Parts: sequence; C-alpha cells; structure tokens
Amino acid sequence: MKKIINNVENIVPEMVSGLVRSNSDLVEEIPGTTAVVRADAKFASADQVGIVSGGGSGHEPLHAGFVGDGMLSAAVAGEVFTSPTPDQIYEAIKAVDKGKGVLLIVKNYSGDVMNFDMAKEMAEAEDIKIGTVIVDDDISVENSEFTQGKRGVAGTVLVEKILGAAARAGKSLEDLVNLGKSVINNTKTIGIALKAATVPAVGHPGFDLKDDEIEFGIGIHNERGYSVEKIQPSKQLSEELVAKIIDEFDDKTGKFAVLINGMGGTPLMEQYIFANDTFDNLKAKNIDVGYSRVGNMVTSLDMVGISLTIMKVEPQWIDWLNEPATTIAW
Amino acid sequence: MKKIINNVENIVPEMVSGLVRSNSDLVEEIPGTTAVVRADAKFASADQVGIVSGGGSGHEPLHAGFVGDGMLSAAVAGEVFTSPTPDQIYEAIKAVDKGKGVLLIVKNYSGDVMNFDMAKEMAEAEDIKIGTVIVDDDISVENSEFTQGKRGVAGTVLVEKILGAAARAGKSLEDLVNLGKSVINNTKTIGIALKAATVPAVGHPGFDLKDDEIEFGIGIHNERGYSVEKIQPSKQLSEELVAKIIDEFDDKTGKFAVLINGMGGTPLMEQYIFANDTFDNLKAKNIDVGYSRVGNMVTSLDMVGISLTIMKVEPQWIDWLNEPATTIAW
Repeated sequence: MKKIINNVENIVPEMVSGLVRSNSDLVEEIPGTTAVVRADAKFASADQVGIVSGGGSGHEPLHAGFVGDGMLSAAVAGEVFTSPTPDQIYEAIKAVDKGKGVLLIVKNYSGDVMNFDMAKEMAEAEDIKIGTVIVDDDISVENSEFTQGKRGVAGTVLVEKILGAAARAGKSLEDLVNLGKSVINNTKTIGIALKAATVPAVGHPGFDLKDDEIEFGIGIHNERGYSVEKIQPSKQLSEELVAKIIDEFDDKTGKFAVLINGMGGTPLMEQYIFANDTFDNLKAKNIDVGYSRVGNMVTSLDMVGISLTIMKVEPQWIDWLNEPATTIAW
Repeated sequence: MKKIINNVENIVPEMVSGLVRSNSDLVEEIPGTTAVVRADAKFASADQVGIVSGGGSGHEPLHAGFVGDGMLSAAVAGEVFTSPTPDQIYEAIKAVDKGKGVLLIVKNYSGDVMNFDMAKEMAEAEDIKIGTVIVDDDISVENSEFTQGKRGVAGTVLVEKILGAAARAGKSLEDLVNLGKSVINNTKTIGIALKAATVPAVGHPGFDLKDDEIEFGIGIHNERGYSVEKIQPSKQLSEELVAKIIDEFDDKTGKFAVLINGMGGTPLMEQYIFANDTFDNLKAKNIDVGYSRVGNMVTSLDMVGISLTIMKVEPQWIDWLNEPATTIAW
C-alpha cells in the first residue's frame, strides 16, 4: 500500500488539523475532539437551529468540508469508516446550540445511528432540544453489511445543503425534521465501483474486481452491491442507473435535482462524460432537471467509481440548493 | 484499462458538453469548438481585459472550471495532454475581447506556446491587442520531454486567480502582463507521483513504479522527475519538497501562499495530512503563510500524487486570492 500518510493511528487527527489550518477563516476544531465547528464571523450571531452531521472518515469533503454559513454548523469525524463516539457528537451539539435546538443529520449505518442516538440522549438530559433525520438514499440493496434498511450515501450532501439553507432562513427544529424526512424520501442513489477502496489499516482493496469488471450498487464503505458486470461504455452505465432510479419515483413529473459524485479516485473528466450521458438518458425519459452538480462530494477513500443521485424537488428546494453557502467544498 | 468513457475519440467534446450542461448558468460552449466562455449575467457588461487560458485536457478542473467572474473569461480544451489548435484559441480570444485587449495565460509546453502564439498573430491581424504570460513554475527539472525551460504546472491556477481578480479591478493589458510575470517569477512547484496517469488512448500508466516507490519531480503529462525513492511518511515527503522550494527564494521574509494540489487519484484525506505536515515544515523554517488552499485543482487524469506550490506574495495578491470568484471549481 502506498499512501501519503504518517502513522495509520493518527490519520484522522492529522487530517482534521490540516483541514482546519488551511481554512481557519471557516472552521475551528472543538478542543479535545476531531470535530469542527463554524468559525466564520456570522456564526456568533446566527440565531438559528444548529445542524450537526458526521460519520466515519474517508468520505471527504463530507462532512467537514460542508461546515459553514448556509450548511452545517458542525461536523464530527470518526476513525476511517467508523462512527464518531457519542461524547464527540455531544461536544459538537453543545458547540452549536443557540437555544433553538439542534438537528442531527445521520447517514443510515448502524454504528452512526446508535452513537448519534446516545449523543441525543446526553444532550436532552441537558435540556437541549434535538431532532434527527436518517439519510437512507441508497436504493441498490435493502439491507447491507453495516446497515439495517437502506444505506446513507451521496444524497446526504444535498440533504445537508437544503436543510442548511432552510435553517439559515429561520425554520424551526420541528419544521426542519419534517422537511428533512420529505427530502430524504425523494432522494435515490446508486453507486458503481471499478476498484474498491484501500482502508489504510487494511492495506489492500476491500474486494477484488477483474480488469474488465465493474460492481453495481456498492456502498461507501466497500460494501458489495447487487451485481458484477463487464465494463461498459459510460452511456450504458448511466442508462442502467437512470432506469433503476427513475423507476423508484411514482411521480415522474415536476423538477429533479441530479448529483454525479466521484468516489475519490475517479478523474473529473470521467465524471463529466458520465454527466453528459446522464443528461441524455434523463431527457429520453422526459425527466426535467432543475438542478445539477458534478464532483467529488461524498467519497470512499481512493475508490474508483461514481454514484448517481436523483432527487424529486419542490421549487423551494431548488432555491435552497442554489443559494450560496460559505464552506470549504460546496 | 477501466474508465468511465465512451469512445476514446470523443472524450473531450463529451466532457466539455457534460461540464457545460451541468453549469449552464456559468459557462457556454463557443460553437464549433471545445472552448467555453463565460455565460454569467455580468459578462456582457464586463468592461475589462479578457483572459483566455487553455491547454491539453486531463487536468480538470483546470482550465474550464476556472472560467467566471473574477477569473478566466474563456478556456480552450485540447485533446488529452495535447495543445488546443490555434483556430480554437483564436475563437476564444474573439469571444472575450471587449476592446481592451486579451491576456493569454499559457503553461510552458512547447505545443501550447506555439499554438497560443499563432492564435495571437491571428488576433493581432484583426487589431485585437494581445498580451501573453508563460507559466513555468515547476522547479524540479530544467528542461523536460515536452518543454524548453521549466514546465507549467499547478501554480497556474494561482496565476489565473490573481490575474483574473486584477483584470476585474480594471488593470490594463500592459499592467496585467507585468503583474503576471512578477507573480510567475515568485511561484515554485514540485510534484510527486505514487502512480502515473493512464492516458485513455494508451491504456496503461505512463511509467511504472514499484509497490514501494515514489517519483519526485513529475510533470502533469507523465513526465519523469528527478529521482525515484522509497515511499516515506508524509512528513518527510513534505520536508523534501518544502526544503527544495524554499531554497529557491532569495528573500524568505514576507508572506507566502501555499497550494497543496491533488493529482486526480489522491484522496482529499491524504492531501490534508500532507497539508498539516507542510504547515509544520514551513513553520520550522519561519515561513509566514498568508494564504493556503488544498484540493484537486490541476490534475493529471488518474495520477496518484500531489504537488506543492509556494508563492511569495505581496499583500495585494493575497487580497486578490481571497476575493470571491464565480466559477465551477475555485
């Protein structure tokens, strides 16, 4: 394994330190944790529901890259592909509570769900109001290695953007929970991998694919998907994902948002080619794209692959997606 | 070779099409070319020197990702690792000329230098004033496979940002050329690779490295560097690059800007760890960092590696680096 790291044990604190030191106008570390909180000038006077997200590391820029005005208030980084501990999450909750409560955005992984829930109990014991939304946008498999129900993957970043903008607009905690549930119900993702990720502590790819093979339906922690197929042209890859995802929407009218997400080791060139094919394939199905985004947003270390997220959106959601957010990576 | 593409021959037009379709509020294609030009609302009334850059494809988000208010006016995409043709560059020049002249920002590669020069002659024959700056920030080798003199690499994006902000501020073409030369003289980069890039038409990595080897001083077109060494901890990798680059500056006082650039296949996690070490190593040399940035800015397809750029900056340049720019990727 060749990686640009020092000790495997120190990967997360060193990464968080590098991120904070190169963006000290935007974020700061919460002392004694690997969580970061907004450090921008507007934060002190931000009279809004706080939003905390987090999860295992290895998905950068998610989540710390999306902390800032109009998006997350704080993000908690666990070890690689491992949930952050409840006490770290609790520290982040305390750092962002302004008396209006705190919303937790949690990807649906058993460890995350459990630890965010424990942090919620700790906060509620201190009279901090907590709301939680669980993102489970991955429609490729029903249950997975580390998840009851569907996995939470790239759609998370769109959920964070919409809820972050809504919180800034003054929505209450209860409204945000309801909005979040509605957004998540309308968000569907499938990912494919050409090469699995190499977890630093493991030292080799999480599963093997032959030189001409591609795996459909992977998760962001090297979870296997629903089939292994021969590599195909981008047009066909996109066609399969578009068909499966669009099939899940009962109502195919109205506007849709699209996220083409690189998994960490895939050049932007290939993401744009896949995007071009996806626009064609959506047009052929008369799907009206009202918002789109392409890039490495929710990665899986050095995995080579891509995911497609499609969200049925209300007009207000498009406005919230388009609003500026002052973060490292949005 | 596994890549998310269709035909090797159509990679660039399909990529440009995907980029434009997912960012139609920011950029549009210049008809009959693979060049893009600003499409934002401010462009029509922008009373400034136009700025055109470009070069071979495979370095995304450079250059098209940096077209927009406060940065480039247009970007021209050649075939993979191949200069755009003079007629494409000429079309971009015509699309951005507002009567105040057009500045060409060219990375120092023989093909680019020649073709941008031909486009300049074509434009001057039509009475468009042209200024050119040649970026040659790569200090790792003196001459290279495709270059007379030093290569132009990741520092290009900082040059584009500073000159873009200065052009928006109303600087004349002559001022911009002088500013550009000064910025370039103060910009130094070295890159390292853990794995070479696979050019789609070739189908295998441009050179071989063993499982424990790393190449110092690579270019962004798979050019070899100055040495092959055993893989080392990030701290030591950074130490070598910092020492070599800082040694090139006669005056080590004042402020410096730092860019840690991912080569396309390197996770952001490793880039932030390298950044953390680089801040330490610069501090140990009493170098005052006034601006820093981390991310995939100037890539080399799927190359696994990183480059470090250090620029000695005047206070005004820091302001220009910090100013917002409305582009896809800044």
